[in-house]
Amino acid sequence: MTWLDVPPDSPFGLANLPYGVFSTPDTGPLAGVRIGDRVLDLAAVLDDPVFAEPTLNAFLAQGRSRWDEVRARITELLTEERWRARVEPALLALDEVRLHLPVAVGDYVDFYASEHHAGNIGRMFRPGSDPLTPNWKHLPIGYHGRSGTVVVSGTPVPRPNGQRKAPADALPSFGPSVRLDIEAEVGFVVGAGTEPGRPLAPAQFADHVFGVCLVNDWSARDIQAWEYVPLGPFLGKSFATSVSAWIVPLAALEHARTSPPVQDPQPLPYLTGGQPWGLDLAMEVLLNGHPISHPPYASMYWTPAQMLAHMTVNGACLRPGDLFASGTVSGPGPDERGSLMELSWGGQEPLTLPDGSVRSFLEDGDEVVIRATAPGPGGTRIGLGEVAGRVLPATAHPHFSQHLPKEQS
Amino acid sequence: MTWLDVPPDSPFGLANLPYGVFSTPDTGPLAGVRIGDRVLDLAAVLDDPVFAEPTLNAFLAQGRSRWDEVRARITELLTEERWRARVEPALLALDEVRLHLPVAVGDYVDFYASEHHAGNIGRMFRPGSDPLTPNWKHLPIGYHGRSGTVVVSGTPVPRPNGQRKAPADALPSFGPSVRLDIEAEVGFVVGAGTEPGRPLAPAQFADHVFGVCLVNDWSARDIQAWEYVPLGPFLGKSFATSVSAWIVPLAALEHARTSPPVQDPQPLPYLTGGQPWGLDLAMEVLLNGHPISHPPYASMYWTPAQMLAHMTVNGACLRPGDLFASGTVSGPGPDERGSLMELSWGGQEPLTLPDGSVRSFLEDGDEVVIRATAPGPGGTRIGLGEVAGRVLPATAHPHFSQHLPKEQS
Repeated sequence: MTWLDVPPDSPFGLANLPYGVFSTPDTGPLAGVRIGDRVLDLAAVLDDPVFAEPTLNAFLAQGRSRWDEVRARITELLTEERWRARVEPALLALDEVRLHLPVAVGDYVDFYASEHHAGNIGRMFRPGSDPLTPNWKHLPIGYHGRSGTVVVSGTPVPRPNGQRKAPADALPSFGPSVRLDIEAEVGFVVGAGTEPGRPLAPAQFADHVFGVCLVNDWSARDIQAWEYVPLGPFLGKSFATSVSAWIVPLAALEHARTSPPVQDPQPLPYLTGGQPWGLDLAMEVLLNGHPISHPPYASMYWTPAQMLAHMTVNGACLRPGDLFASGTVSGPGPDERGSLMELSWGGQEPLTLPDGSVRSFLEDGDEVVIRATAPGPGGTRIGLGEVAGRVLPATAHPHFSQHLPKEQS
Repeated sequence: MTWLDVPPDSPFGLANLPYGVFSTPDTGPLAGVRIGDRVLDLAAVLDDPVFAEPTLNAFLAQGRSRWDEVRARITELLTEERWRARVEPALLALDEVRLHLPVAVGDYVDFYASEHHAGNIGRMFRPGSDPLTPNWKHLPIGYHGRSGTVVVSGTPVPRPNGQRKAPADALPSFGPSVRLDIEAEVGFVVGAGTEPGRPLAPAQFADHVFGVCLVNDWSARDIQAWEYVPLGPFLGKSFATSVSAWIVPLAALEHARTSPPVQDPQPLPYLTGGQPWGLDLAMEVLLNGHPISHPPYASMYWTPAQMLAHMTVNGACLRPGDLFASGTVSGPGPDERGSLMELSWGGQEPLTLPDGSVRSFLEDGDEVVIRATAPGPGGTRIGLGEVAGRVLPATAHPHFSQHLPKEQS
């Protein structure tokens, strides 16, 4: 029980304690922990210079035993009345701070771990053939995304320009994406890195992964469709990837752990072993305030522990701050899909929102919020916060008008 | 003319002056410039703390006018006799220093810009159909690679383990790659970054790209073939990417600039304009000391200025230290191909080396060296140095033996 006035059913109570980076008009980015609607300034109450840095990376690098120690210490500070006088001055109101990208992202890898999502995409793009590619049930498919364009929740997302060609067009054209989409995902933040040549087993997941965030992997489907064969998505994804501001430590998700769906065929041994790391997260996607989907993370085929083992099996090292995401979370139901591509079935079945507006893909000004909760102790819920972003109109390409080809000028 | 005893035909004379990062047993990593067989300790002779940092990133961030200023100053220091007494103590013998990765790589993007390479791969994998995908001549295809596993020349490369399935196999298996390959490429190091939403025109190439290095994009073809549909290469590439230790500034490559091959169809306007940035680099690939290929960089279809414009057209920002590479450089001739996959035609036509050894792909202990020169002033050659690496045997997966499935134990 905390001496703070936090309601017992708060999703940001003592059982959560997520980490983020905040600033005020007076202090530059610092590490903080959220408790209720307040932020605890860690640099002010803990004697470790890592908390005065502008990202969590140095703290992440300290490793599991230190993470556990700090969590225990914060819990003590917020629980024992004798610390109250010292801690209270270090508590700031959440609405008086600005939140920043909590980690400097090293490599960003995006997986494709939902069988329902991969199946939906396969049914749309390859009708008549097996919706899943032959490799899908043997390995968690993934690829590298752009780490330099990972942004914190709340950052506006201008509609990207790019090259696209609809199947009926003879030639590609340049312009703003007309099929701008979201992907509701869960992200995993690497804490303790590894040396090259030291692959990890799934059982080592909690020693290396610090915590969990929410991810919106914004996707320009028209740009992506024209560019992605044979080397995968590039500019259709690299303009922006939004992450939630609070990283929920694995320690807060003990009650969320569950077994993943049965995996058949059995994966190769390097993808097996250890405790299961399925996660029973209830996600919700809101478009302009209206819930449009409730993706159930527990339905994901591949666990994050398997993703970690796969990502390192070739000897690739990890760095503190590396981020890997699950790929779109889609459940079996039509209202459990994590992308507009699936919800509108490629634009064939537009959504009508309660305000009467109709959407297949995003329009300028649309705001998307993805939020989630997880089971906590005693029937409570842990909040994973939200990842929010509003679509801005595309900006004119500053050089485009100077370089019109002859036939157009 | 330098007061140093550098032969007039040295590929590392005053016209070159490439940048790197070195250390000695006494001094931690510092910025240096190569002149002949010596390294000039920049921190010792220039009054700017950026040269005392362990990477070039802070110097790269200073931008084109500062890069030009520093190059002019170094040239003056090495030319005017009056500086000799001050500069000589700051010159170290190249064989007495250790060279480090010169930049902290932000995002690493690999392109696919050789028509001959893409055509060869297409002919091998999709016989009977058009060797180039429909998008290939409309945009420089690229994808993100792993920045955390970019290593400096000389770093040994253990053979990666992974999951692979030959077409004739019923199920995938785990083990060391049996089709380990190279890709001889040229890399471009971003200096001045950009803000989000500020796409670059090809004409801005020299304002943002600092210089050029050589790249060996090691590739496990069997792992890649099984994993890459639909999201592109991942573990088949992410175990290691080697780069040369010296970054040749664009200013040293004025005599190497050339027009790229005629581009037909004409690219969209955002990919046009500015001076051409074809580069007449003569590359050489050596396997265990034997030249096996001479890829001509001038044959590359897409220029690095076009790659830069494409990479940023969607508004993605750049950071100092971002690296983008050309993709495998292959010319039209059979002895101009930049990968063993092409040189041995998928293993169907193994190479016989002068020592009698036969190779389709790399064996443990093999050493690959990629080197290159460029035209310099007055008929001289500029050296791009080399990127070298030796293949080590695969290490046993530390957890594999504990998790054998029942049917194998």
